[in-house]
Amino acid sequence: MSSIEIEDTSPIMQGTEADKAADFANYFCSYAYLYHQKQMLMDHVRMRAYHSAIMANKSLFEGKVVLDVGTGSGILSIWAAQAGAAKVFAVEYTDMAVHAKRLVESNGLSHIVEVIQSSVEDLQLPQKVDIIISEWMGYILLRESMLDSVIRARNRWLNPGGSLFPSHATMYFSAISFEEDREGKFNEYTQSMQDWRKFSEDMTKYYSVNVSSLTPSFQKEQLDYYIYSALWTELRVEHLVGQPVIIKQLDLNTCSLADAECVHPVTYDIEVPYPSTVSGFAGWFTVHFNGSPENPATKRVVLSTGPEAGNTHWGQQVFYLMEPLDCVTGTKLHGMVSMTRQEKNKRLYSLNLELQVDEETPVTKSVYEIP
Amino acid sequence: MSSIEIEDTSPIMQGTEADKAADFANYFCSYAYLYHQKQMLMDHVRMRAYHSAIMANKSLFEGKVVLDVGTGSGILSIWAAQAGAAKVFAVEYTDMAVHAKRLVESNGLSHIVEVIQSSVEDLQLPQKVDIIISEWMGYILLRESMLDSVIRARNRWLNPGGSLFPSHATMYFSAISFEEDREGKFNEYTQSMQDWRKFSEDMTKYYSVNVSSLTPSFQKEQLDYYIYSALWTELRVEHLVGQPVIIKQLDLNTCSLADAECVHPVTYDIEVPYPSTVSGFAGWFTVHFNGSPENPATKRVVLSTGPEAGNTHWGQQVFYLMEPLDCVTGTKLHGMVSMTRQEKNKRLYSLNLELQVDEETPVTKSVYEIP
Repeated sequence: MSSIEIEDTSPIMQGTEADKAADFANYFCSYAYLYHQKQMLMDHVRMRAYHSAIMANKSLFEGKVVLDVGTGSGILSIWAAQAGAAKVFAVEYTDMAVHAKRLVESNGLSHIVEVIQSSVEDLQLPQKVDIIISEWMGYILLRESMLDSVIRARNRWLNPGGSLFPSHATMYFSAISFEEDREGKFNEYTQSMQDWRKFSEDMTKYYSVNVSSLTPSFQKEQLDYYIYSALWTELRVEHLVGQPVIIKQLDLNTCSLADAECVHPVTYDIEVPYPSTVSGFAGWFTVHFNGSPENPATKRVVLSTGPEAGNTHWGQQVFYLMEPLDCVTGTKLHGMVSMTRQEKNKRLYSLNLELQVDEETPVTKSVYEIP
Repeated sequence: MSSIEIEDTSPIMQGTEADKAADFANYFCSYAYLYHQKQMLMDHVRMRAYHSAIMANKSLFEGKVVLDVGTGSGILSIWAAQAGAAKVFAVEYTDMAVHAKRLVESNGLSHIVEVIQSSVEDLQLPQKVDIIISEWMGYILLRESMLDSVIRARNRWLNPGGSLFPSHATMYFSAISFEEDREGKFNEYTQSMQDWRKFSEDMTKYYSVNVSSLTPSFQKEQLDYYIYSALWTELRVEHLVGQPVIIKQLDLNTCSLADAECVHPVTYDIEVPYPSTVSGFAGWFTVHFNGSPENPATKRVVLSTGPEAGNTHWGQQVFYLMEPLDCVTGTKLHGMVSMTRQEKNKRLYSLNLELQVDEETPVTKSVYEIP
């Protein structure tokens, strides 16, 4: 809320012109394609949640001023207008703003929805707003770091007591058993190393160059790519082993940029309920449309991207172990998980995992990039 | 050559820090992976040409000082040292320089090859050089615009009479008949538009938003993607229709940055030699290792990436027509072709095509992006 004073140390959309240019090249440009927007608009789990959250809480929108952070095609702004908003500011940084404007016009809502092509950080509005709506969530919630922009918009433009749609977010972490998928990835890795050995022989034979000194670096590169990178996967509930663990909860009404920065180390204890081969772990999130304490939602909608929710374009992010764990009933998986921003691209994260089985074996530590 | 005074107006590796940061994000970062280097090192057409060009002209390298522009894994520098060079400066902008250094060391050539992590533009050398070697060629020769850096290196660092490896380049353009490939792409386009119509109906039915005003923009986006983008293809000689046309020749000993900038409009006349369905056109290149007039190569090696040369990682770039042309023997395809840099990314090109059949039909004009 605007009354909260927070030091803005987030690297996203801050920094030098060079940082911003690289950020645009790395991140924003993909959102300028209608094909990409269509993919998100065809995610009916996502669409139904936002549509219900707005339409089942029309009383919150009627006569109100709304800000849509990163409107993309303009869909949320159009729904807010259809729900009775008096004015909607639809902010979009990419050239998708041109399409959003056309969509607003052709749906007869130009008198309510004003599309503004700007970053949130450079935004100028004539007034504060009553509601901020945004679909800012990336893979495993934090990827893309767009939440930073939503928090900045809240601090600068939301009236006291105003509400955020969504208002809360929760991150989940679970052990999983999905050997056919893990083995597929592992086999690709071993094949890649076999190819390297053949390549290495050829380089000596045909070109008199011994590349074997690069083998450890190539192996690390391939391990990072095939094993120590999060995989987008559509899990089913039966892949879960034991109970999912909550690793972060965010109240968007009050959270700071520092809260959105990372997942601080969280200890987990998972008891394996029946004999299972644990292949690794998975992460996903839910967001909740509760409104604010002063303006609560009448109907509280939840958008889940978990395995129980059906397929979404977010899927789940999976972190496979190099070697699966054969677990008996009652095996205890104990450890720590955290997420930190990558040095080379602040919109991306690394997941740090510590794992110990039954408090007897050594603790293994792994770092996974979320690409 | 260093005596040539040329105004440097090339946008590559010039401009603001923001331009450079975007350029690194868009372009250089992919070359930092050994996997990518391995793909190029496994291109035996490429490898054999450079290896032969150096090893069959050892007299040019013996006791000489060599500059390798964009050394990547360091392979060309190692060969130059093996061929007898007294000193090789191996320049690489990305972190691949670390691997190149290790490869040089493990092949016992650290006393000859000095790996320098720098852009060519910021390079500082203790002396001028006798030979510049570089593998700078992108798809359809000019893509990636790395030739700019080679020309700058030549202007700044090559001794008068010094030689470039390669020394010449030629770009080819040909009509082709490859309907199974063109139809595949065309079918993907029509399927994509069918999907859009279904999507459009769903948006109205489920979410009360009419997206039909975006249909023309979506169609343009899909046409640009599926049809008006160059396709990487491995053609066979039997796909060619009539004689290939030379659209550009470059003498690297003398060419300017302006020469490397684009392909100026070239008129072509192709006579169809027997009944053929013309699907579109294709472009590729050859480079030649002739040395300089003062220091000519003993054995002149040619690296061809044409359909007759077998498979290379460059393949050929194909530009398909929306509708194939059924041609009888003697049909004349007449028109103009040119290539210009893309506004949004100066390392990429657009191909502009004008086509008239038998000087009777209207001239059709198309622009293809080379992604």
